[in-house]
Amino acid sequence: MSAAASSSPLHAPAAPGLGPVFDRLRPHMAELDIFLRAQLSSFEPEVRGLADYCLDASGKRIRPALVFLSGWSGGLPSLALVRAAAIVELIHLATLVHDDIMDGADLRRGRDTATRHYGPEVAVLLGDALFAQALNLAAEFPTTEVCLAVSDSTRKVCTGEIMQTLRRRATDVTRADYDRVIELKTAELFRVSCQLGARLGGFSPAFATAATEFGRQLGNAYQIYDDLADFFGDETRIGKTLGTDLRSGKLTLPLLVLRERLPAAEGAALLAEIAGHRTPDLALRLRQMRELDVFTAVVTDLDMTLAAAEAALEPHAALPPVPRLREVAAVLRAQVDALR
Amino acid sequence: MSAAASSSPLHAPAAPGLGPVFDRLRPHMAELDIFLRAQLSSFEPEVRGLADYCLDASGKRIRPALVFLSGWSGGLPSLALVRAAAIVELIHLATLVHDDIMDGADLRRGRDTATRHYGPEVAVLLGDALFAQALNLAAEFPTTEVCLAVSDSTRKVCTGEIMQTLRRRATDVTRADYDRVIELKTAELFRVSCQLGARLGGFSPAFATAATEFGRQLGNAYQIYDDLADFFGDETRIGKTLGTDLRSGKLTLPLLVLRERLPAAEGAALLAEIAGHRTPDLALRLRQMRELDVFTAVVTDLDMTLAAAEAALEPHAALPPVPRLREVAAVLRAQVDALR
Repeated sequence: MSAAASSSPLHAPAAPGLGPVFDRLRPHMAELDIFLRAQLSSFEPEVRGLADYCLDASGKRIRPALVFLSGWSGGLPSLALVRAAAIVELIHLATLVHDDIMDGADLRRGRDTATRHYGPEVAVLLGDALFAQALNLAAEFPTTEVCLAVSDSTRKVCTGEIMQTLRRRATDVTRADYDRVIELKTAELFRVSCQLGARLGGFSPAFATAATEFGRQLGNAYQIYDDLADFFGDETRIGKTLGTDLRSGKLTLPLLVLRERLPAAEGAALLAEIAGHRTPDLALRLRQMRELDVFTAVVTDLDMTLAAAEAALEPHAALPPVPRLREVAAVLRAQVDALR
Repeated sequence: MSAAASSSPLHAPAAPGLGPVFDRLRPHMAELDIFLRAQLSSFEPEVRGLADYCLDASGKRIRPALVFLSGWSGGLPSLALVRAAAIVELIHLATLVHDDIMDGADLRRGRDTATRHYGPEVAVLLGDALFAQALNLAAEFPTTEVCLAVSDSTRKVCTGEIMQTLRRRATDVTRADYDRVIELKTAELFRVSCQLGARLGGFSPAFATAATEFGRQLGNAYQIYDDLADFFGDETRIGKTLGTDLRSGKLTLPLLVLRERLPAAEGAALLAEIAGHRTPDLALRLRQMRELDVFTAVVTDLDMTLAAAEAALEPHAALPPVPRLREVAAVLRAQVDALR
């Protein structure tokens, strides 16, 4: 339980490869790093090193970026925005710690997961402690508004993941089921990130509502992209093994579209792979997805979702956050294009 | 995922066998039950049945009892007290759900654990959702005070459990280590229960401080009792298998005292059992504990802790909560006596 041993410098601020909008956030992310590091002192000394280890996982920090951009007014971010960014990042990190236990994952972004490093028992508790600290930070705001929003979101994120877990290997998952799960497990935290950013940035309730809707749709689009990348991504570039959804029996959007377009016999074979009654044939499914234009169909869907995100901002085009948020949508669109 | 199937009536209000002070709380516990059941509607419909299943585990409800008694003014409890009681109970239930994953426990109080019922993956997320809902309830108070206190406590409880997990099978655990762990993992939630009760009951800050200290010491005493009962309890009465701490390599107070009193060779053999290098001989250790007066030594310690709890209340003897809280200490003392 050596705090010093597992302590190491926080990763370089700002995620690489996410375009100029994230470059512009470098000073914001540096502030976030300083703030998160200072947060470690709120943990009891005996677990500070463990909490530090979790913070250390160098992520893309999309959710904090959304807080900063939704509250954008130029210059350095206010303490309130930095605190809110830290809250959503801590909640995201806590869910990752718990996800890795469930997936039995050994590595995340090139380093041992907390589960592998400390064992699953400690990882459960460590994720809990990160959640608790996020809520403790939320309680530092003058009113209960942030606590209410963040605790509500956290419950929804967990609910989405519960639903997904319970439906693993189920062959009767519908498009509506898929939409509901991604809305909860992914879009919810994107949504609240934008909501908090706009509110704490001092913008009007009308813009906060618009930013909230933008975040929600962006989150949905991001999850569709993520599910698409699980088939069409480049393993070394996205840093994950492909085909994990098929192997783990998760009927994501690309698989739902493929099933719909396959002849009955082949569709049944695919469902048998989902159910775990047959070894998945990833190469075959990928070939079928290309032949049946599944990629295009899913991208069309994703484009519509992104368009809905952007449309929500339309009436507020004159506000400083709007061009920044539009850039985020453009970055995601470019990432989707890179999958082609 | 059938909500209806796993839904069942909440257990009978008030825990059996905890004496007249708990009988007096029957109406309070009935209010708590109604409130907790109403809380289920805050969960998304897809997981309501699962949350209900966790609420259902009929526990002793000591923490809610401490909220009610610390804010005692006769009559039915205010909504604020009921809400605070629900918060501490939800947090306690969440920790139990996560504890059972780690222990691989199949049964708790005679029914399947959430882990057994839904699988460990869902149980991790379900515990998270219960935590989140507890914090969401805390955010319903007009100020952030309850959120701050509860999130801080939750982090401490998890920290205590992390420390205990990391030190399992360690043979160099000291009394100071033991004290620190029980202070965090058990005393903390007792402490905050009394603190919230006194504050929300409208009592003076001086009494709130006294009640807080009472809760802390009572929590420490309760954990010592629990560790003693793991050796000297009656399996059917306490509803647990005895000797689990010895088998799982946890150096609790009875074992620390035994090790101190054993001749060197036998002490080394005991530590080899703790380390997992030797099969534990529960019957032998129990005989040695009796021969070396370990029971008496631990009870003396426990008595001092309870006396410190009661002393904290002394200056406020005229306030209505004080006789009730003293009764709780007396109930615990009687339970300890019943182990003899």
